[in-house]
Amino acid sequence: MTYQAPIKDILLALNHGAGLKAAVEAGHYGDFDGDITEAVLEEAGKFASDVLAPLNRVGDEHGIKLDAGTVTTAPGWPDAYKRWTEAGWNAVSGPENFGGQGLPLAINAACTEIWSASNIAFGLCPLLTLSAIEALDAHGSAELKQIYLSKLISGEWTGTMQLTEPQAGSDVGALRTRADRAPDGTYRLKGTKIFITYGEHDMTDNIVHFVLARLPDAPAGTKGISLFLVPKFMVNADGSLGTRNDIYASGVEHKLGMHASPTCTMTMGDHGGAIGYLVGEENQGMRCMFTMMNQARLGVGLEGVGIADRAYQQALGYAQERRQGRAVGSSGNGSDVIIAHPDVKRMLIQMRAMTAAARTICYATAVALDVAVRAKDAKVRSEAAARGALLTPIAKAFSTDIGNEVAYLGVQVHGGMGFIEETGAAQHSRDARITAIYEGTNGIQSIDLVTRKLAANGGASVWALLAELDRIVKQVEGSNDPAFGTTGQKLRDALLSLERASRWLLERVGTAPNDALAGATPYLRLFGATLGGCYLASEALAARAEHLGDPQRYVALARFFAENVTVQAPSLEKSVTDGAETVNGADAVLLG
Amino acid sequence: MTYQAPIKDILLALNHGAGLKAAVEAGHYGDFDGDITEAVLEEAGKFASDVLAPLNRVGDEHGIKLDAGTVTTAPGWPDAYKRWTEAGWNAVSGPENFGGQGLPLAINAACTEIWSASNIAFGLCPLLTLSAIEALDAHGSAELKQIYLSKLISGEWTGTMQLTEPQAGSDVGALRTRADRAPDGTYRLKGTKIFITYGEHDMTDNIVHFVLARLPDAPAGTKGISLFLVPKFMVNADGSLGTRNDIYASGVEHKLGMHASPTCTMTMGDHGGAIGYLVGEENQGMRCMFTMMNQARLGVGLEGVGIADRAYQQALGYAQERRQGRAVGSSGNGSDVIIAHPDVKRMLIQMRAMTAAARTICYATAVALDVAVRAKDAKVRSEAAARGALLTPIAKAFSTDIGNEVAYLGVQVHGGMGFIEETGAAQHSRDARITAIYEGTNGIQSIDLVTRKLAANGGASVWALLAELDRIVKQVEGSNDPAFGTTGQKLRDALLSLERASRWLLERVGTAPNDALAGATPYLRLFGATLGGCYLASEALAARAEHLGDPQRYVALARFFAENVTVQAPSLEKSVTDGAETVNGADAVLLG
Repeated sequence: MTYQAPIKDILLALNHGAGLKAAVEAGHYGDFDGDITEAVLEEAGKFASDVLAPLNRVGDEHGIKLDAGTVTTAPGWPDAYKRWTEAGWNAVSGPENFGGQGLPLAINAACTEIWSASNIAFGLCPLLTLSAIEALDAHGSAELKQIYLSKLISGEWTGTMQLTEPQAGSDVGALRTRADRAPDGTYRLKGTKIFITYGEHDMTDNIVHFVLARLPDAPAGTKGISLFLVPKFMVNADGSLGTRNDIYASGVEHKLGMHASPTCTMTMGDHGGAIGYLVGEENQGMRCMFTMMNQARLGVGLEGVGIADRAYQQALGYAQERRQGRAVGSSGNGSDVIIAHPDVKRMLIQMRAMTAAARTICYATAVALDVAVRAKDAKVRSEAAARGALLTPIAKAFSTDIGNEVAYLGVQVHGGMGFIEETGAAQHSRDARITAIYEGTNGIQSIDLVTRKLAANGGASVWALLAELDRIVKQVEGSNDPAFGTTGQKLRDALLSLERASRWLLERVGTAPNDALAGATPYLRLFGATLGGCYLASEALAARAEHLGDPQRYVALARFFAENVTVQAPSLEKSVTDGAETVNGADAVLLG
Repeated sequence: MTYQAPIKDILLALNHGAGLKAAVEAGHYGDFDGDITEAVLEEAGKFASDVLAPLNRVGDEHGIKLDAGTVTTAPGWPDAYKRWTEAGWNAVSGPENFGGQGLPLAINAACTEIWSASNIAFGLCPLLTLSAIEALDAHGSAELKQIYLSKLISGEWTGTMQLTEPQAGSDVGALRTRADRAPDGTYRLKGTKIFITYGEHDMTDNIVHFVLARLPDAPAGTKGISLFLVPKFMVNADGSLGTRNDIYASGVEHKLGMHASPTCTMTMGDHGGAIGYLVGEENQGMRCMFTMMNQARLGVGLEGVGIADRAYQQALGYAQERRQGRAVGSSGNGSDVIIAHPDVKRMLIQMRAMTAAARTICYATAVALDVAVRAKDAKVRSEAAARGALLTPIAKAFSTDIGNEVAYLGVQVHGGMGFIEETGAAQHSRDARITAIYEGTNGIQSIDLVTRKLAANGGASVWALLAELDRIVKQVEGSNDPAFGTTGQKLRDALLSLERASRWLLERVGTAPNDALAGATPYLRLFGATLGGCYLASEALAARAEHLGDPQRYVALARFFAENVTVQAPSLEKSVTDGAETVNGADAVLLG
């Protein structure tokens, strides 16, 4: 089962649900007029179907091999990576002055979904490189940029982000890797990092590591962390590769999924110390990390969307071919295809609706992050920045929860065949699992949403968003289209629940933080279910108004989501507001 | 991380939530007075911790090997199986006249949970044998029973159930394996079966296969299916093993989980035909299968409970040791254990509450199935049979959904470590996955619940159960214990939702079956969430009334479930009653 990028759905989500078209028309995107969007996505879809998708199973089956510090990727992977860079896909959103195409993040977001859908373990490598590019572009010295930036943008070299250590996972401040100042202004790094994605591989000549470490005189915790650029091979003045630096893969993990993506233990300092260059200022490493965190988290959310769509396409294909039993009212002679059975149909439309909702939430986040840097008006920029900050944890956590839920349903649609590895459905489920964990677990995202994003400006970002959503709901209510069923009512109830839950949390986040924290996870779900429902409805309205394709399809999709997912909003509100006491009073239960 | 059977919780659930104590006191269990329950469970727990749990990882890592028709299980497994039969665990609920201990199904249900928790892939073998025993005991001739039954009960030989063929999964009636009558009254079977659990292995000298096949002159569909006993080795008159029968494992599956359990493709007839003995009458095979379906489905539900508890214990242990970050209000110097963070605490209590609810639902099903055969009064028996039939699909589907959800959360609590196979959390998640699929997918269970169990007697079984649940809710409301929080209100709302949804479905199941079918899955969830909430509340009330252990622990558990799971009842009701149109009108969405 291969993969076809759903270009029509992507364009509707991007232009209408996520508001790219309106932002372009309002002049917030400068020169970019959106004319090339469809062509870029068509080409991305073609590359994904032709080159990346066929390597997805191969990668899972072969995995990677580590031998004496050298990692060999699966057959065909280095060649595919070469084609990837040659076709220019690595450079889509990179800055133009270093060879990038300078396209909006929103376009790259759609591409990221497409890469993740076709081959999530492959797509993860450029996703990490993108974070490295961002960190270097924002905080690196002119000299470092000159040497490294264009090669990272073209993809000739890849980047890694090295934060985690055994005792320092979610708690980055607990890291111990040590960086000593050398007389020549460089640093010598010693220490061990774990869970380093593509920390070593055979797809490029060089790898540029971005490593968080601690100076000998650094303050404790996150305030004493600095960011260093540590190349695998030193780079000579003429740009050619020099000596091997003292950073090696000393182990690779045996993982549930993402088998083709090497997850390395990296050891620095066995031969005197890895040479590192400071990025940004000393002890400002956390600031550098935060700069790129929004984009990286959005990228993981898009992995959730991509894997969900892949799982959906595979399950749909199976359900259209597999015959079992007779459907009620069937006029055929033999068995019917299982998609004719309402329970299977329910699973498939649920998969599609959840995927579509997550997609638009992620794209809307990308549009906000674009406008935050591209708009001419400072107020527009700052409001967009707040919107982007608010949406990012939802885009990350809600979409990856959905990626997992949809991949789970994908296995279920296959019945017994779903449990057999060769079918491929199980791989999506295994691969999806990490997306709810890395780049900040989904629990961390919920806490970020409640304690930073909601509370940041007394709730102003949330009220502004609710006002926009309210306009969508009014349009649904005013449409008088019976095909919407009870969509308007469900969305209205959800808006009220989200508003009440937000106020409840705002009242407690300062005074009773543990109560607020206990409700964080259901609050994020409530937010995602409300937002997704409204966005899908706005897409259905746009499809009707502008006669895009078959509008009834999008109305039915929005309705299903509202009546089966958004409908949970009132109960989620209660879990937020009633539940704190139970959670925080749970010690008796957990210790008994 | 090993496993400790939660004897205290099991006893509370069995005696109080599930009503074993009341049934014993009412005389429905005959001679059985419940005095030995605790001792049996303590011993089961010991065997599980000492013998089975340590082999769980080994089994997953080694898997099984097939070589020229011979399957080798993982190191230590044949020896553990030997100890298992020697200790008498295979015979717990087997009929006494063939060497079984004749203990109630309810006791065996608790044991099944314990085996599944300690080593689900091991426990699956006796679970299948139990089904074989049931089929043979109910339908086999005296001669067949004489030869095979006591050896199956002791576990000296194991049994398989062979239904599935490539074109016949959920649709059993589509099977093609052929049985020809032989002059001596036996049959010759030819065909291929797939997905046969423990179809071949090295733990016993003989394997007794129960195979569904079709006579040459059989009617089409399920009405033309017969059940045959097909031994791996023929049995001589003196009970010794004779010639090898023509049934061989020709392949084993490469699966997502349950690696230690061989899932075989079985080929019959390459050497003239496998010799089979008819069980029951010709063309009555489906009846034989239905006989044992309740117990088999309950067994799978208990696998869900077991794997959930194992995942919970592992996550709890990790959360009590792993240190990351500072909790709000923490007075310590360094990092806190992650269980101190409310979001982690929420995940753990959710795991525990969901596990406890599923446990009691399964045990209550077992008690009903016990009373249905053990009670003296025919009316009591028939009401219990209806209750058992009603609860079985819920026990199977709700509990295995929970098994998957809890195992998912178990991975999440571990953060990045959860994705690493050596941690063990991922294995539980992989192993759990099949439980929602086999023995009738959970969608099939929902359809069974709506079209057969709810509709069977015009809803009478449901109304009788609702009346019982109402009494529990009244007690909660009357308890005036503030520790219950809003439990009473949540349960009351859920009862009303369940009643309305049941009526809505009853009105449509005959006249608009596709509408009823479209709501089947949310209806089963609604039923489970309501039932689980009420059962946990009744356990909390019993713990308070009878001063069992620390009653506040059970009150907090019931409250969490009510406020975070049962609270979804009203939205699930709406998904049942609003959603049908969306699902059945979804063709535009799925084909666009």
